Amino acid sequence: MNSHRIAVIPGDGIGPEVIAQGIKVLNHIAALDGKLQFEFTYYPWGCEFYSKHGRMMDDDGLDQLSQHEAIYLGAVGYPGVPDHISLWELLLKIRKGFDQYVNLRPITLLEGAPCSLKEVTREGIDMLVIRENSEGEYAGAGDWLFKGKPEEVVLQTGVFSRMGTERIIRYSYETARRLGRSLTSISKANALNYSMVFWDQVFEEVGREYPDVPTSSYLVDAASMFFVREPERFEVVVTSNLFGDILTDLGAALVGGLGLAAGANINPERKYPSMFEPIHGSAPDIAGRGIANPLAAVWSASQLLDFLGYEHHGRSVLKAIETVMTDGKVFTPDMGGRASTEQVGNAVVEALHALQPIHSPWKG
Amino acid sequence: MNSHRIAVIPGDGIGPEVIAQGIKVLNHIAALDGKLQFEFTYYPWGCEFYSKHGRMMDDDGLDQLSQHEAIYLGAVGYPGVPDHISLWELLLKIRKGFDQYVNLRPITLLEGAPCSLKEVTREGIDMLVIRENSEGEYAGAGDWLFKGKPEEVVLQTGVFSRMGTERIIRYSYETARRLGRSLTSISKANALNYSMVFWDQVFEEVGREYPDVPTSSYLVDAASMFFVREPERFEVVVTSNLFGDILTDLGAALVGGLGLAAGANINPERKYPSMFEPIHGSAPDIAGRGIANPLAAVWSASQLLDFLGYEHHGRSVLKAIETVMTDGKVFTPDMGGRASTEQVGNAVVEALHALQPIHSPWKG
Ligand SMILES: CC(C)[C@H](C(=O)O)[C@@H](O)C(=O)O
Ligand SMILES: CC(C)[C@H](C(=O)O)[C@@H](O)C(=O)O
Repeated sequence: MNSHRIAVIPGDGIGPEVIAQGIKVLNHIAALDGKLQFEFTYYPWGCEFYSKHGRMMDDDGLDQLSQHEAIYLGAVGYPGVPDHISLWELLLKIRKGFDQYVNLRPITLLEGAPCSLKEVTREGIDMLVIRENSEGEYAGAGDWLFKGKPEEVVLQTGVFSRMGTERIIRYSYETARRLGRSLTSISKANALNYSMVFWDQVFEEVGREYPDVPTSSYLVDAASMFFVREPERFEVVVTSNLFGDILTDLGAALVGGLGLAAGANINPERKYPSMFEPIHGSAPDIAGRGIANPLAAVWSASQLLDFLGYEHHGRSVLKAIETVMTDGKVFTPDMGGRASTEQVGNAVVEALHALQPIHSPWKG
Repeated sequence: MNSHRIAVIPGDGIGPEVIAQGIKVLNHIAALDGKLQFEFTYYPWGCEFYSKHGRMMDDDGLDQLSQHEAIYLGAVGYPGVPDHISLWELLLKIRKGFDQYVNLRPITLLEGAPCSLKEVTREGIDMLVIRENSEGEYAGAGDWLFKGKPEEVVLQTGVFSRMGTERIIRYSYETARRLGRSLTSISKANALNYSMVFWDQVFEEVGREYPDVPTSSYLVDAASMFFVREPERFEVVVTSNLFGDILTDLGAALVGGLGLAAGANINPERKYPSMFEPIHGSAPDIAGRGIANPLAAVWSASQLLDFLGYEHHGRSVLKAIETVMTDGKVFTPDMGGRASTEQVGNAVVEALHALQPIHSPWKG
């Protein structure tokens, strides 16, 4: 029996609702596999916890989480708790504390997913965006001077270290090579005259070690245009923390919306647990109504399976999502349907059972 | 006779080709008006000038330009001349030197323009993005420490001054009020914990003076999603230099591409000349072939007319562009046609002559 310890943080708003479906899917995968099991430990952290205890997680929260291979997170944030608490003391604390410097966001138009674009073939959108996830624009460095005076000035400093920049770019070249895909770097050296000049330089330097990987570079403004007009240009994409944040939400908008967008926060060295989350928020406006789309959470579960080495199961889950969207047409309201969160989750499970397990070419 | 002195910088690549059409349109407008004339002075600055003289413009270039009411610019940049020269010593030098702190970019789906989105009505995309154009992320401030050492670190500092932030936000409220539209601020305070917290604060403070203007705020990542999925949410938009850069290219992609995207760099106090430019680049790959799309340059000319107080002429030019795209279907290759730059320009002129002049409700 292969057993995996997973920390589950359902979080706020719709978080618990969508995570429940993801857990159900993971348990069914385990049952179908027969030799796989998950030990889930639940952590009730988030904004409700904060309102009771004055903190977003236990003081030794990171210690507790570090006992696990991975973290499965729903959503964090609730009206009334300011972002600098809800995010910086939970989501961003985990990303940074566990050196999850790789943020993996697949932008793939699944079969049956509603595409916003007029003239794109399904094959046309299939990229993996690798976002730097630990420093850069989100380093949190800055200053606020002469507050309230006419000369008041606020500084926000992006911090791009050699180590941080090199490791994300190296990871991306490795990934592109492994997948046999091209690698595109997205930056903005013509205006960000320190950070992005450096980024481009590192991209080129590291690239010399990967002469077999075809590369290209785009300015972030041009890239945002080509995401819409010619998304087929992009395969594996590497970019900074902020640009990745913007471009992956844009990408998500193209391939079905946030209801279908998953993100993995990876510590590639596996020194610390990695974290898997739908990239949508806690959506307080629809929380508790049982209508949140669980597919992003289910897709995250598929990324978790990949990460644990079960790529064939990861692919089955994606295939099941596609079945639900094509044959079943079981959609929550955000995707134009009337199904409940639970019904969509159940449909995924049914599709999984109906599927011939797809065996990975790599794993046999 | 109302005479206006305009400096023309055709610039590099396709710049001169598209500017020629814009000038033609302006001259026809003047002829149709009868009481209006333009004095164009040409400045041969740009990368070719640089290759001969070692500088992008004359040393007293800004002085020379300051003799004019406005600048009409084609495009800057050519392979071989690094960006920090071609842009920082011409385009950005003018924007900054003339305190053109307002960058006005209409994102409007004109009639006949090819829209990339599936389910959007023409009325659905009609926004005016106001981009901060003088400081912020593009301040050029930063440092590069421990070069070549393992501890190497590169800093890029966004600079948001009270004065700079307040004036762009105030300008935007004024504009929204004048147009009777809502105002949306786009920022990212949950991650950029100094600059964008400040931005949001100023947006709220200044807003207290404009209780009649409906407002909303978006995170930049969410905004990039809603630009695609529900662009009708946005009317007047104010955002930072970098976010404006990214979002307006994204917006341009939705409403016909860069071939149709204009930008005005405004010094509202009219202490210095304002500058009007298509936002596309010099496109060296198609330069000299007479196939560049002049419509963005023509749209910029329409913005120039607005700025000079001839909004009715500005609207006629837009109407003429629409006629060319609907009745005429005269398109350059980027928009799927076979027309030349010149043919499109001529079609605009013909449409102008055919039009009943549209009189502005404001100007009678
Ligand atoms: C919640 C926020 C800080 C976060 C980010 O910007 O990284 C989110 O938008 C994301 O993309 O995961
Ligand atoms: C050329 C470049 C510096 C410029 C910018 O980023 O401002 C351009 O992209 C624009 O949007 O006008």
